[in-house]
Amino acid sequence: VLIDSPHNQHIKFFRALHERKGRLQHQAFLGEGARLIAEALAAGYPLRAAAICEELLSPAARPLAARLAAGPWPCHLTTARAFRALSAEQHPQGLAIAAAQRLTALHQLPLGPRDLIVVAWDLQEPGNMGTLIRTAEFLGAQALLAVGDCVDFFEPKVVRATAGAIFHLPLASAAPQQFWAWAEQGGVQVLAAMVEGGSPPEEVHGQGPWAVLVGSEAHGLPAQALRRATRHVTIPRRGRLDSLNATIAAAICLYHLTRQLSGEQRR
Amino acid sequence: VLIDSPHNQHIKFFRALHERKGRLQHQAFLGEGARLIAEALAAGYPLRAAAICEELLSPAARPLAARLAAGPWPCHLTTARAFRALSAEQHPQGLAIAAAQRLTALHQLPLGPRDLIVVAWDLQEPGNMGTLIRTAEFLGAQALLAVGDCVDFFEPKVVRATAGAIFHLPLASAAPQQFWAWAEQGGVQVLAAMVEGGSPPEEVHGQGPWAVLVGSEAHGLPAQALRRATRHVTIPRRGRLDSLNATIAAAICLYHLTRQLSGEQRR
Repeated sequence: VLIDSPHNQHIKFFRALHERKGRLQHQAFLGEGARLIAEALAAGYPLRAAAICEELLSPAARPLAARLAAGPWPCHLTTARAFRALSAEQHPQGLAIAAAQRLTALHQLPLGPRDLIVVAWDLQEPGNMGTLIRTAEFLGAQALLAVGDCVDFFEPKVVRATAGAIFHLPLASAAPQQFWAWAEQGGVQVLAAMVEGGSPPEEVHGQGPWAVLVGSEAHGLPAQALRRATRHVTIPRRGRLDSLNATIAAAICLYHLTRQLSGEQRR
Repeated sequence: VLIDSPHNQHIKFFRALHERKGRLQHQAFLGEGARLIAEALAAGYPLRAAAICEELLSPAARPLAARLAAGPWPCHLTTARAFRALSAEQHPQGLAIAAAQRLTALHQLPLGPRDLIVVAWDLQEPGNMGTLIRTAEFLGAQALLAVGDCVDFFEPKVVRATAGAIFHLPLASAAPQQFWAWAEQGGVQVLAAMVEGGSPPEEVHGQGPWAVLVGSEAHGLPAQALRRATRHVTIPRRGRLDSLNATIAAAICLYHLTRQLSGEQRR
């Protein structure tokens, strides 16, 4: 059966995942494109449904489509018209999944001496959140924790910017109070980046567990978070501009800390 | 005189800068918002014209608007209706400039032993280009050189993502052939990032001049550029994902090289 109507119930289910309300109701999110879906399958991530449009599929994506169709989840075949109705992309590639929203509870985050948790604090920009998840996974952080008023992990723009890391990296969320209670009870070193006055990233040493705070692009970290952090880092500037993009600054700090924790750094 | 008509010639001049054709014709580009314009004034950047809309201006931006209005360039006062017509922003802040397109010739790029040039190669994403210009300026690179088929430096999305770095950092462009001739004649060390097989960034040493190549998000660097590069770097991955965002990877490499070249790194 080839679905053609944009009003078909399965198409409407995928389409509902464009909006936060629909994502909450179904506890699912939308993923599209070959790269993302290959990562979901590689991770063995729980899927609720898949949709394939052969008309839109590139020849290179056919083997992946076959693997997707062979899974234990419902797989809907659609026309280009129906697929365009379910897709959140400008140029749909003919492959979509509805994945389960999997969150880790705060108390289940690992707290060993080599563990590092990236903490997004009031981070609102979807591209920055997605790139942060991707960077944290690549460099070997154990999880990403969203504190305060962050963009939804499962928004299509965030999902796309993770390049599939969302299917690998454990994700959690917490209110600021819960975060501080968790950090104190767990003996977590809380690292905050400051415009001046902190140590350069390569001089931050010591065992974890670490929490690396990343603030919003517009406002940085709240003053209280800067004050309560136990370690401070400053990326030395040599140019004429006074700030780096928050995700870029976080990546430079994470590179050094994850390298040190994994024992690769020679000192 | 308060301009209200979207068809006013001055409004049309700003509006023409949204498109590449208009930017080329006028050899100018559009900048908006308090942060960006403060950097343009701080840099003493050559401006062609300014536009101010008091209705849209936040109280915090008034002193900056007064400085902008006091400059030697034509300054147009507009209604909100006319300002929205000239703006490329979804939420215009009531401040805009038309800045001259200033490019540096390839042979004028500095080639000293402490100099580092960031090279964007076929980089198409406006956000990545803008963030790369911002990162290069913050970390103290001498210039950014666009090689091959890159997005226009002066596109509004690029300009916005630079956070004002575009008014400070020298920018140049070249065809691939010109680039290699320049690098060979100048004794430039050409560094390329690879998915595997290169040195970790902190183990790349030596005097400049350096050129750090940054490829596109979708395709990376062309095979020929990887082959002709004189040094190769690989950011060790510890996670399950096989690639970093191109700008994030470049930032980690630039952090180490600029630090080493400035003599701050202790070894």
